[in-house]
Amino acid sequence: MSVITDLIEALGADAVLTGAAIGERYRSDASTTGRTLPLAVLRPASTQQVSLALQICDRYRQPVVPQGGRTGLAGGANADDGAIALSLERLTGIEEIDVAAGTMTVLAGTPLEVAQRAAEEMGLLLPIDLGARGSCQIGGNLSTNAGGIRVIRHGMTRDNVLGLEAVLADGTVLSSLNKMMKNNTGYDLRQLFIGAEGTLGIITRAVLRLRPLPAARLTALCAVETYGAVVALLKSAQRDLPGLSAFEAMWDSYFRFNTEALALSLFENPPPFAVIIEVDSSGSGEDRERFETFLGTALEDGTIQDALVAQSEKEARIFWSVREGHAMDQRLPGLVNLDISLPIGQLGDFADDCSAALLQHFPNAHVSFFGHVGDSNLHVAVWKDGIDAHDLHAIDTIAYGLVRQFKGSISAEHGIGTLKRDFLDHSRSEAEIAVMRRIKQALDPNGILNPGKVLPA
Amino acid sequence: MSVITDLIEALGADAVLTGAAIGERYRSDASTTGRTLPLAVLRPASTQQVSLALQICDRYRQPVVPQGGRTGLAGGANADDGAIALSLERLTGIEEIDVAAGTMTVLAGTPLEVAQRAAEEMGLLLPIDLGARGSCQIGGNLSTNAGGIRVIRHGMTRDNVLGLEAVLADGTVLSSLNKMMKNNTGYDLRQLFIGAEGTLGIITRAVLRLRPLPAARLTALCAVETYGAVVALLKSAQRDLPGLSAFEAMWDSYFRFNTEALALSLFENPPPFAVIIEVDSSGSGEDRERFETFLGTALEDGTIQDALVAQSEKEARIFWSVREGHAMDQRLPGLVNLDISLPIGQLGDFADDCSAALLQHFPNAHVSFFGHVGDSNLHVAVWKDGIDAHDLHAIDTIAYGLVRQFKGSISAEHGIGTLKRDFLDHSRSEAEIAVMRRIKQALDPNGILNPGKVLPA
Ligand SMILES: Cc1cc2nc3c(=O)[nH]c(=O)nc-3n(C[C@H](O)[C@H](O)[C@H](O)COP(=O)(O)OP(=O)(O)OC[C@H]3O[C@@H](n4cnc5c(N)ncnc54)[C@H](O)[C@@H]3O)c2cc1C
Ligand SMILES: Cc1cc2nc3c(=O)[nH]c(=O)nc-3n(C[C@H](O)[C@H](O)[C@H](O)COP(=O)(O)OP(=O)(O)OC[C@H]3O[C@@H](n4cnc5c(N)ncnc54)[C@H](O)[C@@H]3O)c2cc1C
Repeated sequence: MSVITDLIEALGADAVLTGAAIGERYRSDASTTGRTLPLAVLRPASTQQVSLALQICDRYRQPVVPQGGRTGLAGGANADDGAIALSLERLTGIEEIDVAAGTMTVLAGTPLEVAQRAAEEMGLLLPIDLGARGSCQIGGNLSTNAGGIRVIRHGMTRDNVLGLEAVLADGTVLSSLNKMMKNNTGYDLRQLFIGAEGTLGIITRAVLRLRPLPAARLTALCAVETYGAVVALLKSAQRDLPGLSAFEAMWDSYFRFNTEALALSLFENPPPFAVIIEVDSSGSGEDRERFETFLGTALEDGTIQDALVAQSEKEARIFWSVREGHAMDQRLPGLVNLDISLPIGQLGDFADDCSAALLQHFPNAHVSFFGHVGDSNLHVAVWKDGIDAHDLHAIDTIAYGLVRQFKGSISAEHGIGTLKRDFLDHSRSEAEIAVMRRIKQALDPNGILNPGKVLPA
Repeated sequence: MSVITDLIEALGADAVLTGAAIGERYRSDASTTGRTLPLAVLRPASTQQVSLALQICDRYRQPVVPQGGRTGLAGGANADDGAIALSLERLTGIEEIDVAAGTMTVLAGTPLEVAQRAAEEMGLLLPIDLGARGSCQIGGNLSTNAGGIRVIRHGMTRDNVLGLEAVLADGTVLSSLNKMMKNNTGYDLRQLFIGAEGTLGIITRAVLRLRPLPAARLTALCAVETYGAVVALLKSAQRDLPGLSAFEAMWDSYFRFNTEALALSLFENPPPFAVIIEVDSSGSGEDRERFETFLGTALEDGTIQDALVAQSEKEARIFWSVREGHAMDQRLPGLVNLDISLPIGQLGDFADDCSAALLQHFPNAHVSFFGHVGDSNLHVAVWKDGIDAHDLHAIDTIAYGLVRQFKGSISAEHGIGTLKRDFLDHSRSEAEIAVMRRIKQALDPNGILNPGKVLPA
């Protein structure tokens, strides 16, 4: 008997792919760093099957890597070194939308976009949203505590999860499908699995919090002179615009590159900072007036130098296309995108220091900055010709070294996986990492769940 | 050598109260169920001293009970059975307010109200707020994951904590003083300590999230016919009033008692449900118009039957005095106040069933209902003449039995402590309680931190 035979016997042959039946797509997440195909791919169709599979793997000390939509950017879903992949792709479906409670109960393998559409059909908003929505899964979003574009208004994925069901390494099914906003009955176990990147349990179901669907959105693009003024603008927007749902800043290096690439001329001169402000609106004239008054005041008091208000959804999409930077991705193949976080007041100084340090090491590189400033999140885009693994390591070392100095986080959103594992101590103390290990040991004593991810050996 | 001698030697005599020096106030939290004075009271003045104290107690296997402001209602801070109390009362002070980041770093023993005032002085709001604000401490708020009156807008305490420092049972200082909104670097350790009621570590510092201070508030009291209409009103308020900051419902039993006790005549006939709606406002006329339009529409479409809009802060306070029910507390000494949570759509049916069941058992009792409906939180007020421990147990058994049937939570806010410990399995499965024990074992292997609290023996 082998682990594979036992698994086929327990789950049925259709739930266990081996050999040539394993498609190339199971090799890697979106970081494209997966080296080998998994030993086997399990495709359980129920929580019970997930439990059976883990009981067997735990008995054989067989490493298991949960796979969601494999859109992760940290290597977390790669099943190298003889690991078995457990894909949630057959565990899909919306089980319930409770309109009074404002909740959705959903199976973990459901693609995010499918869940979003189901909420919208009931007139509700599922506030988790990110570019990978078509492929990423609810279970993957929870396991990475995904951020995305609505964090400033509705928080991270963690803030939108009311309950979940997870299967522990030994097959125990832990059902905490709470639908209440408030529940102080002992330890809040759902928190253990959110953001754990599949190392503490496999998420099989979730109860998500839904919000009212905004009728419309108002969007403006502002020209700002200094980083200090960007922060001042953020503070007044948070105070005066109750529906504030996005606040995105682009440093001139980023704004200039992307507007040029898209052949757009938005301001007479590219400003030091360009900021997109977006507000959820009831669609009323009052909301529009409030928005324009806000911008008028900011112009008058000198916080901003110019402002373009989108007159249509199409115009709003143009502003966003600059921010999304697909043109940059195309023109600079292999572009490195770091995803760091710092106290909001320090993002400006960090960008200056980081730019100088990277350009000193790579004089001809492209270095630019943009980010969800309202969420303390900065992206660093770095590119050089013929970039190799050695260069990548140098970039990480320079940038994360600075993050450590600024007491920031080496991962705002994307997680640690394998790619940032060796830099975890730049943001976490030895004592913290030791406690993480104690938790891992308590929940997965045989270390079968996604070994080698998150925690350095 | 004894544990006390060692503690005196390590911390100094002024930090260790024993014998007659132990004041009566250290006996119990606000549940007044503490039976004995603690063996000793430790009053460390630094994280380092907390660490030293725990190292010594761990060595002696000496039980330690953290004490904050002792305003808890679940018996969690009682140091019975020869336990030592560790009071945070000397660990006070605001260490930093970072206006750009919108954060406050504060020592755990700081009274909530002191922290609130400090934020307000910088033009910011610390959104954690509850009636016990003058005495409860930040560390106690975190340890109970306190709710309070602004949850609908800003969430529970958990949602307002960005980072914390805690000392583990073995004296390890775990410093996770994160100031960022986003930080996905490994397991989110702060979640372990929030709501753990002092059983997993002693919180010594916290980084709290601050919000813009609202310039003004708008308050209305609405008369509503059915529980279904209360839910419809909530949904439209959540959609159309972006600054919604309170939504409190009173069942007629509660509203009638308190208006009569205060000799107020607010509506011509006491309605089946009275609802307070409050909105944070910039103080502008527009906001007031939007609020009144909202109420007008609800009147027209029949969601509400009547609405009183407070014309002054004084009038708003009158509405709130009915809701706070101090008059009821005075007239019905020993009033039992249960704090449960259910999916919002089911609060109405639960109240009907619970009322019937309690009145069947205690035909002459007072039973009434009120709650933070927007947060899924219902309070049940029960009173009978000459209530004794036997009656209390009967009330708990009836009410929590129904909560179990409705798949609700026996504690929305107040926590488990000792008082609800034997009912924990009404809201949590065996598997969940077993995982809680694994976590407890991993962090406090000798079981010295607040033993007997939260988890049944
Ligand atoms: C175009 C694009 C845009 C993106 N934008 C954002 C963004 O704005 N914000 C952001 O945060 N991320 C973003 N990402 C990253 C990625 O989409 C998110 O991390 C997403 O949440 C991953 O979901 P997934 O289902 O693809 O997970 P996977 O990549 O399959 O897995 C991610 C991790 O979670 C584990 N896992 C997956 N499912 C489960 C489960 N059910 N139980 C336990 N563990 C599980 C895996 O083992 C792995 O460690 C983006 C990615 C792309 C390609
Ligand atoms: C008038 C009144 C109104 C109230 N209103 C509300 C309300 O609206 N919402 C609500 O949720 N609660 C309410 N409460 C309950 C209570 O105020 C809260 O639970 C509060 O958060 C407790 O804080 P404390 O400092 O008094 O904690 P304590 O009562 O001292 O302790 C509570 C628990 O936390 C532990 N603890 C305390 N400090 C620490 C620390 N630093 N580290 C580790 N563990 C610690 C204790 O061991 C105990 O288990 C109210 C109480 C009163 C008396």
